[in-house]
Amino acid sequence: MFTVTFTLRFGHCDPAGIAFYPRYFELCDAAIEDWTAAVLGHDRRTMHLDLRLGLPTVALHADFSRASRLGDRLDFAVRTRRVGNSSVDLDLAVTCAGEPRFAARYTMVLTDLASMQATPWPAPLRDRLNKEVE
Amino acid sequence: MFTVTFTLRFGHCDPAGIAFYPRYFELCDAAIEDWTAAVLGHDRRTMHLDLRLGLPTVALHADFSRASRLGDRLDFAVRTRRVGNSSVDLDLAVTCAGEPRFAARYTMVLTDLASMQATPWPAPLRDRLNKEVE
Amino acid sequence: MFTVTFTLRFGHCDPAGIAFYPRYFELCDAAIEDWTAAVLGHDRRTMHLDLRLGLPTVALHADFSRASRLGDRLDFAVRTRRVGNSSVDLDLAVTCAGEPRFAARYTMVLTDLASMQATPWPAPLRDRLNKEVE
Amino acid sequence: MFTVTFTLRFGHCDPAGIAFYPRYFELCDAAIEDWTAAVLGHDRRTMHLDLRLGLPTVALHADFSRASRLGDRLDFAVRTRRVGNSSVDLDLAVTCAGEPRFAARYTMVLTDLASMQATPWPAPLRDRLNKEVE
Repeated sequence: MFTVTFTLRFGHCDPAGIAFYPRYFELCDAAIEDWTAAVLGHDRRTMHLDLRLGLPTVALHADFSRASRLGDRLDFAVRTRRVGNSSVDLDLAVTCAGEPRFAARYTMVLTDLASMQATPWPAPLRDRLNKEVE
Repeated sequence: MFTVTFTLRFGHCDPAGIAFYPRYFELCDAAIEDWTAAVLGHDRRTMHLDLRLGLPTVALHADFSRASRLGDRLDFAVRTRRVGNSSVDLDLAVTCAGEPRFAARYTMVLTDLASMQATPWPAPLRDRLNKEVE
Repeated sequence: MFTVTFTLRFGHCDPAGIAFYPRYFELCDAAIEDWTAAVLGHDRRTMHLDLRLGLPTVALHADFSRASRLGDRLDFAVRTRRVGNSSVDLDLAVTCAGEPRFAARYTMVLTDLASMQATPWPAPLRDRLNKEVE
Repeated sequence: MFTVTFTLRFGHCDPAGIAFYPRYFELCDAAIEDWTAAVLGHDRRTMHLDLRLGLPTVALHADFSRASRLGDRLDFAVRTRRVGNSSVDLDLAVTCAGEPRFAARYTMVLTDLASMQATPWPAPLRDRLNKEVE
């Protein structure tokens, strides 16, 4: 399982002093950015500029269990749950020192940036993803 | 049904030229901010500073149907779906010139900011919310 | 002088309950976006996608005089101060009910998005800008 | 000189594919957050919650020399330039593989969060800052 750690910054917190959830999704997106490079083997710059492939989110479900505070070190664990013809489902579990903070399930679809249409996973990428699911 | 319109700004768009989903949630939050003042009858400043009440999100489900682009005028329709003892479920339907772009379902819990614990709706607020559901 | 009003949202505020300055610049950018459409006569979508012209910031100076709080209605007054061969200087004065909050001076350069090089103002745009300065 | 490195993320980039300057200031603020812990010896959580001290920005000057792109590894060097009675000036120089991208000069003022008034540096903090300047 792919894991990355981010610090909850001042700029991520709201006037109640806790994480503002749209900033959580910025951090989730950064975690998925690092997962992309590690698991797919291409970073987003290569995906976008060279391969002309995007991976937009089509569905997102999040449950927030406990608030996070300024300075918390948050661990983002990214699990590949299901690989479709052109889609992938990811489960993100976010914890602080082992305590669950929130969980998010993403469905993303590989997209040809020229046509903005879904496109099947190239075989090498699908193989890499399937290895993660098994 | 409460409705508010926001323009999709340059700063809301990603390198693919379409709305970046964490920014969508910033706009949803602004729509809920305006809904709070209109439906609950107290704006967030009063809620936070005077009443010491917050309304954090505990669950969020979003489905993205079509991409939005720089300059799109997005209509956020906020429907109160269910009122609990201390919670409220909202459905947001976001359209551009009538075309669906995304939908989000929020569950939020009224929270005492001093104790950070859930607290029941005061009767006047519950009455206002129930009027929205009926 | 071009003026636009924005509400300081929950998501613009920091754990001290006041405006977080990077969010101020998002609001300044939205004000400049509206100024672009009003003064240049082309909105940013047209500028970017049809004319392939950008207007990136090359220098920025800001002075913050008083803090802004959740719910403040901020007036952004945008004055065109100087027009260069391919540049423009803007002065933004931001007030709340007449009270100064912050001021920002921008230097921006018209840029050909294909070459990412500075490009002179087309005559009709320069004429419109010069009318603002006089 | 204090230095920290951040990756320019997808969410930091605009539709032209380059860094959006308000996001640059979020990264600058994160660099200053790390500088605070390293140089002042108190992290922002301690500063805010325990010492009830903030360090808001009162002036900011930035010059942008070259655009940054998705995936760039940006080095933020933070130099303490001047220490006042209750203020501090910082120079941030941001480079990518040694190439200058932008520079920012901050003036910040130590502020009592209870009164929101400027307050002199406590001697131990001033000593630490002065050691940086020398």
